[in-house]
Amino acid sequence: MAKVLTSRKENYAQWYNDLVIKADLAENSPVRGCMVIKPYGYAIWEKMQAALDGMFKETGHSNAYFPLFIPKSFFNREAAHVEGFAKECAVVTHYRLKNSPDGKDIVVDESAKLEEELIVRPTSETIIWNTYKNWIQSYRDLPILLNQWSNVVRWEMRTRLFLRTAEFLWQEGHTAHATKEEAIEETKKMINVYSDFATKWMAMPVEKGTKSPSERFAGAVESYCIEALMQDGKALQAGTSHFLGQNFAKAFDVTFTNKEGVLDHVWATSWGVSTRLMGALIMAHSDDNGLILPPKLAPVQVVIIPIYKKEEELGRITEKARELKKRLEERGFSVKYDDRDTQKPGWKFAEYELKGVPVRLALGPRDIENATVELTRRDTMEKSTYPADQVENIVEKFLDEIQENMYTRALRFKEENTFTAGTYEEFRDIINNRGGFVLAHWDGTAETEERIKNDTKATIRCIPITPEKEEGKCIVTGNPSRKKVLFARAY
Amino acid sequence: MAKVLTSRKENYAQWYNDLVIKADLAENSPVRGCMVIKPYGYAIWEKMQAALDGMFKETGHSNAYFPLFIPKSFFNREAAHVEGFAKECAVVTHYRLKNSPDGKDIVVDESAKLEEELIVRPTSETIIWNTYKNWIQSYRDLPILLNQWSNVVRWEMRTRLFLRTAEFLWQEGHTAHATKEEAIEETKKMINVYSDFATKWMAMPVEKGTKSPSERFAGAVESYCIEALMQDGKALQAGTSHFLGQNFAKAFDVTFTNKEGVLDHVWATSWGVSTRLMGALIMAHSDDNGLILPPKLAPVQVVIIPIYKKEEELGRITEKARELKKRLEERGFSVKYDDRDTQKPGWKFAEYELKGVPVRLALGPRDIENATVELTRRDTMEKSTYPADQVENIVEKFLDEIQENMYTRALRFKEENTFTAGTYEEFRDIINNRGGFVLAHWDGTAETEERIKNDTKATIRCIPITPEKEEGKCIVTGNPSRKKVLFARAY
Repeated sequence: MAKVLTSRKENYAQWYNDLVIKADLAENSPVRGCMVIKPYGYAIWEKMQAALDGMFKETGHSNAYFPLFIPKSFFNREAAHVEGFAKECAVVTHYRLKNSPDGKDIVVDESAKLEEELIVRPTSETIIWNTYKNWIQSYRDLPILLNQWSNVVRWEMRTRLFLRTAEFLWQEGHTAHATKEEAIEETKKMINVYSDFATKWMAMPVEKGTKSPSERFAGAVESYCIEALMQDGKALQAGTSHFLGQNFAKAFDVTFTNKEGVLDHVWATSWGVSTRLMGALIMAHSDDNGLILPPKLAPVQVVIIPIYKKEEELGRITEKARELKKRLEERGFSVKYDDRDTQKPGWKFAEYELKGVPVRLALGPRDIENATVELTRRDTMEKSTYPADQVENIVEKFLDEIQENMYTRALRFKEENTFTAGTYEEFRDIINNRGGFVLAHWDGTAETEERIKNDTKATIRCIPITPEKEEGKCIVTGNPSRKKVLFARAY
Repeated sequence: MAKVLTSRKENYAQWYNDLVIKADLAENSPVRGCMVIKPYGYAIWEKMQAALDGMFKETGHSNAYFPLFIPKSFFNREAAHVEGFAKECAVVTHYRLKNSPDGKDIVVDESAKLEEELIVRPTSETIIWNTYKNWIQSYRDLPILLNQWSNVVRWEMRTRLFLRTAEFLWQEGHTAHATKEEAIEETKKMINVYSDFATKWMAMPVEKGTKSPSERFAGAVESYCIEALMQDGKALQAGTSHFLGQNFAKAFDVTFTNKEGVLDHVWATSWGVSTRLMGALIMAHSDDNGLILPPKLAPVQVVIIPIYKKEEELGRITEKARELKKRLEERGFSVKYDDRDTQKPGWKFAEYELKGVPVRLALGPRDIENATVELTRRDTMEKSTYPADQVENIVEKFLDEIQENMYTRALRFKEENTFTAGTYEEFRDIINNRGGFVLAHWDGTAETEERIKNDTKATIRCIPITPEKEEGKCIVTGNPSRKKVLFARAY
């Protein structure tokens, strides 16, 4: 079968786009910057959602739902937030259409103009803190630990499927606390939840740290993030958790009586991950033949393909295939038997490689005779024959091994592509010629950060949490640095 | 404890609103007509979603996601659809805000006006069929069986929490078929899924039928619905499933080559239920003390409340309570132990009655001595003492019985409040003085339907599926009628 994807070497961006389209994950819609998430892509997102939702609930959070629209004036309340969020957004100005005078068209009814414009939420801090005001009077009402699964809109000019779209799906956690310490603890807890999810479910190692002040979320006191390294050496921010201090409580006048009977402002956090994770998952693992999905997030974990020449062979193969499918399903695996007669086995092999199904089970007449199955692992493409009566155990072992191997491979890639630059020359050489993460000393100023960005397009991805201190000199200015920070070009 | 709710008899509408607010289900937001769904309300919705999603998947459907925005021109394509849906809606006209000249405010950036306005989806037939056009070439691409969980916006002038809100959450199924028969079968299958869900999960009996032409979905050839009867004798449409014929395929030019090699338009269905079901659930079952939740949809099925006078008693009670909680959870029940010392037992009893927790387990010093527990059923408020070592079995029995009893009670209510009117005078008397469902012969014309509506505010809720035929004379005109149809005043 002809290769359906541009190779990564040839054109990484094109490879990504080809893969998203050809593997039926998503496609562009007629609405500028908005995507259609196709069933196969959505099934992966559903698995991510289920895992994350479970982790949120285990850590004491509940889900709720707040309005899609935010009154324009709300954005004005928090000074930093308005700068960061209220600019490129979808503005609802009218609430009615009417027939045009000639009756051939529908037009906006100018008499149905809103008194105050509504903004389609780009994030929900403002509407949620405006609500929390009514929910919180005393320390007894705290903490509030809520999460929302929703769609948000940011009017991006240059969009890419999953990575940057005008509308995207995400979850946003918004918590309220009685003390600063508790809010900081929550912020850290949630970045750890994201890091665990990336590691254990997505098989994707991440760097954990804080953002530099210029990269902080608009309105945050401190932003924690996880950063992953893609195969082209660029970084991708995969999740953020923000300590918002009392900024939103002050902006929306949310106070409470503490245990000592003193009135204080409430402390806040917010944290989120989005369908961008789909982009990270694809770019962290896949190859020139298609997706490679970690078994824990694969909608189909095992595909069974019958191999036959004569129609009469199919009956016995199907009988055996159904038995194997049932046995594997009883073990908790998701299995698809593809007995379509419209496609040849070779076409199906390529199709499921493209779609990243972790284990392929081929079943032919000789397998029936010998009571064997042929299993192929998607991560290594290793193929071998095994006794059919052992299939559950072997598949279970394979799925575990694939999940682990994918992580190990990605970790090795990250380690091999994380460099330390002692000088600015060395730094530029690495960024320009090799890519990857670069650790370097930085003097902590926005000026130096800006200069590096202008010179190299690399940004500070995070200030790693460990080591706490490791003094040195800034690679650009030679001024004192508290520790090395992590740079990369980024998505 | 003082009654927190207006009684149903006093003011049913106020009782409903009180209950939604006081039981922490939802509240109004500062955005006109948009609600905040609070964690407890959302937890019930999540249980509904999970059950429905499972039923959709069992019947072969997958989830996907389509854009929030629909280009205005799309609504013009299907003539009936534009009349029904493109009028009262949120219109996005701009994509940027900017600082006002004095820097004190943010204002719409007039230079960022969209060439074509975008409509926040009131329903997604148009954008989805525009997408299906690219997915369908041959009968081999059919059927497409998709569902979407999403938010939609219809600019309602008079809103009520859950029952009618500008933004609401729902699911919308959109399927594409090669034949008319298959599409009709799908339409019926899905109304049966809804009917099963209402019956088995919500403990809510429904009438199943088709809509009269004037009440059909805009663009449908036939609309099936389920109608439930609320305690005030008004009907509530709880779900719809539409056979769309080839209308949308023709509007969006979606054709396929059938098995005979002939080009034909694709056949369509769409079907949906929304957060309106929350309103139905509340109004079908609850009483003047609060919610009554069917155990299958209750976020907390059993609440354990310690009864103690002295602090030292609490230790032993808590030990026992934790053991019971663990045992009940192992049986698969969701259990909450409320040992807050800020509230008295009586307050807690009222609180969980208000919130509709199906089973209350009270545990005091004498229970510890006697190895007993006191169980109270929310549906009947029956209270008795049982041996503690039998608690799992008794609770299991109770939860089953409550689920069944709630259905039986609601069914009895529906039967007792379903009348047959032989004359228009009788009809008016029932509608005006008793409420409920009224079966009556109708001549099938929109004029008669309109007259009845103007005279009595009653509408045709559905044309029941059975009996197929039962000839008679229209109660208004005396003209021939094929069968009796179901009238009621409705939400």
